[in-house]
Amino acid sequence: MYSFANDYSEGAHPKVLDLMIKSNLEQNIGYGNDIHSDRAKEYIKSLIENKEAAIHFIPGGTHTNLLAISSFLRPHQAVIAADTGHIESNETGAIEATGHKIISVPGKDGKLTPESINYGLELYSKEYRPQPKMVYISNSTELGTIYTKEELTAISELCKEKELILFLDGARLGAALASKNNDLDFKDIANLTDVFYIGGTKNGALLGEALVIIKDDLKEDFRYLLKQKGAMLAKGFLLGIQFEALFKENLFLELAIDANEKAEQIAESLKKHGYSFLTESCSNQVFPILPNEIIEKLAKEFSFNIMEEVDDKHSVIRFVTSWATTQESVDALANFFEINS
Amino acid sequence: MYSFANDYSEGAHPKVLDLMIKSNLEQNIGYGNDIHSDRAKEYIKSLIENKEAAIHFIPGGTHTNLLAISSFLRPHQAVIAADTGHIESNETGAIEATGHKIISVPGKDGKLTPESINYGLELYSKEYRPQPKMVYISNSTELGTIYTKEELTAISELCKEKELILFLDGARLGAALASKNNDLDFKDIANLTDVFYIGGTKNGALLGEALVIIKDDLKEDFRYLLKQKGAMLAKGFLLGIQFEALFKENLFLELAIDANEKAEQIAESLKKHGYSFLTESCSNQVFPILPNEIIEKLAKEFSFNIMEEVDDKHSVIRFVTSWATTQESVDALANFFEINS
Amino acid sequence: MYSFANDYSEGAHPKVLDLMIKSNLEQNIGYGNDIHSDRAKEYIKSLIENKEAAIHFIPGGTHTNLLAISSFLRPHQAVIAADTGHIESNETGAIEATGHKIISVPGKDGKLTPESINYGLELYSKEYRPQPKMVYISNSTELGTIYTKEELTAISELCKEKELILFLDGARLGAALASKNNDLDFKDIANLTDVFYIGGTKNGALLGEALVIIKDDLKEDFRYLLKQKGAMLAKGFLLGIQFEALFKENLFLELAIDANEKAEQIAESLKKHGYSFLTESCSNQVFPILPNEIIEKLAKEFSFNIMEEVDDKHSVIRFVTSWATTQESVDALANFFEINS
Amino acid sequence: MYSFANDYSEGAHPKVLDLMIKSNLEQNIGYGNDIHSDRAKEYIKSLIENKEAAIHFIPGGTHTNLLAISSFLRPHQAVIAADTGHIESNETGAIEATGHKIISVPGKDGKLTPESINYGLELYSKEYRPQPKMVYISNSTELGTIYTKEELTAISELCKEKELILFLDGARLGAALASKNNDLDFKDIANLTDVFYIGGTKNGALLGEALVIIKDDLKEDFRYLLKQKGAMLAKGFLLGIQFEALFKENLFLELAIDANEKAEQIAESLKKHGYSFLTESCSNQVFPILPNEIIEKLAKEFSFNIMEEVDDKHSVIRFVTSWATTQESVDALANFFEINS
Repeated sequence: MYSFANDYSEGAHPKVLDLMIKSNLEQNIGYGNDIHSDRAKEYIKSLIENKEAAIHFIPGGTHTNLLAISSFLRPHQAVIAADTGHIESNETGAIEATGHKIISVPGKDGKLTPESINYGLELYSKEYRPQPKMVYISNSTELGTIYTKEELTAISELCKEKELILFLDGARLGAALASKNNDLDFKDIANLTDVFYIGGTKNGALLGEALVIIKDDLKEDFRYLLKQKGAMLAKGFLLGIQFEALFKENLFLELAIDANEKAEQIAESLKKHGYSFLTESCSNQVFPILPNEIIEKLAKEFSFNIMEEVDDKHSVIRFVTSWATTQESVDALANFFEINS
Repeated sequence: MYSFANDYSEGAHPKVLDLMIKSNLEQNIGYGNDIHSDRAKEYIKSLIENKEAAIHFIPGGTHTNLLAISSFLRPHQAVIAADTGHIESNETGAIEATGHKIISVPGKDGKLTPESINYGLELYSKEYRPQPKMVYISNSTELGTIYTKEELTAISELCKEKELILFLDGARLGAALASKNNDLDFKDIANLTDVFYIGGTKNGALLGEALVIIKDDLKEDFRYLLKQKGAMLAKGFLLGIQFEALFKENLFLELAIDANEKAEQIAESLKKHGYSFLTESCSNQVFPILPNEIIEKLAKEFSFNIMEEVDDKHSVIRFVTSWATTQESVDALANFFEINS
Repeated sequence: MYSFANDYSEGAHPKVLDLMIKSNLEQNIGYGNDIHSDRAKEYIKSLIENKEAAIHFIPGGTHTNLLAISSFLRPHQAVIAADTGHIESNETGAIEATGHKIISVPGKDGKLTPESINYGLELYSKEYRPQPKMVYISNSTELGTIYTKEELTAISELCKEKELILFLDGARLGAALASKNNDLDFKDIANLTDVFYIGGTKNGALLGEALVIIKDDLKEDFRYLLKQKGAMLAKGFLLGIQFEALFKENLFLELAIDANEKAEQIAESLKKHGYSFLTESCSNQVFPILPNEIIEKLAKEFSFNIMEEVDDKHSVIRFVTSWATTQESVDALANFFEINS
Repeated sequence: MYSFANDYSEGAHPKVLDLMIKSNLEQNIGYGNDIHSDRAKEYIKSLIENKEAAIHFIPGGTHTNLLAISSFLRPHQAVIAADTGHIESNETGAIEATGHKIISVPGKDGKLTPESINYGLELYSKEYRPQPKMVYISNSTELGTIYTKEELTAISELCKEKELILFLDGARLGAALASKNNDLDFKDIANLTDVFYIGGTKNGALLGEALVIIKDDLKEDFRYLLKQKGAMLAKGFLLGIQFEALFKENLFLELAIDANEKAEQIAESLKKHGYSFLTESCSNQVFPILPNEIIEKLAKEFSFNIMEEVDDKHSVIRFVTSWATTQESVDALANFFEINS
């Protein structure tokens, strides 16, 4: 059984694991104040060309989202997100559990636009509704799409104008920046957002997301909040070591490029047979629309997710690739469609 | 510099790391539904002789504490803890952040007694105060002491009588059960409490605590709460693998026995020179009372924590040992006291 | 200027005020444990023919909603409501501020149906989304519509089948039960819901809602929660006195019948001139669709709310009546339309 | 039975009730935006000589406390209070329910001192404990004592130095300012604190507390928070009317002076018979220490609270007076002690 179910089925990339093994018996300071975390932060600061950024390593994505949102908003404030946004549809109410409403607005292929944000602002403009104060976007999105520089700039400008905090969920930031369609780099992300994170879990690490706080007045006391929400690991160096390995050289992007290329191969082999897609495939997620009978056959050899029905006879499914996806499995999939289309 | 600062300075025990390495490229199901987690749960269930227990792996101790307390209490209910309890003094208000008051009562060497619990119940018996509904204890405690079977039984019986949930923080449960003074085993812990956890972070794992829910009506829907509080890791198998390694055979207790023996050697070398202690040393923490000038010298060669002043000239310090503590460092410490006492 | 802006512009109905005046210098026990509150509860229990109901008086509607929802749900549970529901659109995120997501589903004229509830249940059926555990409906709704016995029974049965708590917001329950189209009585409401409230503020009282808890396991410790959320007034008898006055005899329904009749007169005078309505007018709220130029003129003599644009030239407005609405003002409105249509 | 149990046994002072009656059928704007609220705010602003203060009327004291504390603190911040403080001992965990720890420090006769505040600051100075950011004091205190100008100034200066918000609970501010020992006025209170409130419930109103926000950066968006926590009454004018009546002329202080004089008479009649007191009686609460047998007799004719045992044979009880306390009842009490001492 080849798995295209997600990008977190395996452990760490061997180079990440190597550094963990090598430093396993070192004595490091606890709670993220260790030298590996320091180094990883320096690498990231260099990459974004911002020495004043505040960086914190957090075990997982939901944890990062709830921390950022609950730390930066006052109790009456809400966050605008696309209806497909991870915080809206995949986190068991984690954000509401911290007291904040998510203002869910229609996305376009998983992305927010200035129009959709303005729509949310208009609906939530009176004191009898929560006050929108943050915009949450994901790059790449839950539908595998990515923001162009023009799109992100437009959102960034609107947020500045309306005094909204722009928060970018980068659980799959690697996949976005490694996309062939991408025209953003780390520096742009840092310049255009107030806070964002770089997902390690889905791109080479065992676990860990690097939250990067750009806006000055969001930086204060963040370690208190990390600790309070259970996100400050005793062995915080475990996260530092992994980000050190990913960012010392170019490993983080290399892994993402590799994953995207595998996804592209998959998309190509599907296009060849005339299949259409829910969204344009440009990162490590591919959402083909397939006949149900093909899906049924496919499920005997491959694992993947069925997303939704399109009509009586067709459904959208999802293939996800990662650094751990083998060429063999991609070829097997191509072969399957050769035979079954 | 030899470190006795804590029991989380190094990575994972080599045998734990080995299983991580071996299974690194396996494709595992996400979110803790993997085979390693299943196996680890079976090992623990066998050990406690309770096949109905619900077990969940959680990244860290504060996270586990806030999850257990907020999941099991209604909004108006409070938890009774010793004034030295970890939730009261070391978690940045994590419990209050979930809406619950900690009723802090005087402990005895870090332990609660039926008397101290009853004191809390009397003070909090009216509707204008929160309702005590849970008792939180740690074993071993923050002061390195442990509960005897008689003591734990007395608390357990009181809790049953008063319909209080008994929750045992086992961040250092290994150290407790491996103590020479201990007369409890895993089965007793499971029989005498409603919910407890087994700390991996401080006894061989990179990270991870195994929450064991015994009381039936506390089990329902716990995975929702894990997810909501950011504690359900995508690569949950990472925790399962480690607990599998620790509990497949007897590694967990072996590591704790080793750590305790090192602590005992340290305590003996101090007693030899006539030093007294804040509490009786019986697990992996030793709290000697030393002259400040000795402490000053000591700090040049060893790292440790200074806990509190005893008088103008003496302070309590803390030495902590772990599976990673070397005999060499223990000997160096003994040697230091030979020379400096 | 005649006001049809809402049903809370004046103080208390004179008969309610009279009892307040008469008992003003009595010495009453605090915190709702007084004899007036007891009497009011007895009257309501008789009316619903349920001597075991637990009744609590709460200052306002949002306060009642947030209390009921946060007291009865566990942290990971959510409440299903119509998109027009008061908790969704008019309470500044009060429910989310207690940690719970509102699952907003499309209503039909402000009402939920078994279909819409089932839709919410299907969307929220996995552990990565909050668990639906309560259904929130209003009677009369925010659009002035009411539930028939058949409709409420269908919802009630679905809730029982799916183990959902059915909570009825009765901020305007008087208006619903006094409607000419109504076939429900207080007893039905109590039989078909798990918890509901009877709105005093909008029907004769200065302030106060009577929360009636029918389902046994929701009753426990509710006074703790009242107190904790700031809803237990020192002079709780103030609420008891008013509900005593409203329910000693039939005043509560009489006032609502009077308000509804005024609303009906308004609706009739509009129908006469051929205007249509957003929803069928059957309680104390009327939602005519009027030409914008008429609305503009109207605003010079009457106060009311503009709800939404229908097209370039027409908008929906809202007229609300109450026990305090004078026949003079209703006639003036009829006269206005005579002249201006 | 004469009641000295508390200062909230009766309704409103007749002059307050009169204005409610007079304005009962007026049509007022809802949600506190009415002319009576405006007037009341102007009266209070004049009294404190601060035209920029933001004033909000809130139904009750616990509600006001939880609103002020949760609105002004970030999630990791805590409030320092005396162990006898109302928020610590009488509000069913209302503050913790909003997520914030109360740092309880020993008070002196119910009052905080710079020493006790500094003690709290020292204990809570590290990131593993919540961050003290607010100081909560009551005037008069729960033990009937009051702050002198010197004492309040010292606390105010410390708070400025340490960047702590100083919040004064004035549920019994009238009793404090009307005390014979008092040297503070409303203006001083406003100058020396960042936020405080003026209690209506216990001094002439049916219900209502006036929260006065002095510090500029605490003012923003407060109405959102009022609404979200259920504190914005539809008929908010009900609170405005009462504060208008209390502050149009000098009624508020007159009522408090009258209550204090009655308390003084009670204290004098007790001193005459040689009884001692828990605290010096200087406001409307008297805390005599009486033989238990006297207390038993007393309870047959008077209602009052028994606070705590002093020894086997003596207890502290509490007498409370208000504007509604009759001279007859005070005389009856004096007479009782004549006969029974």
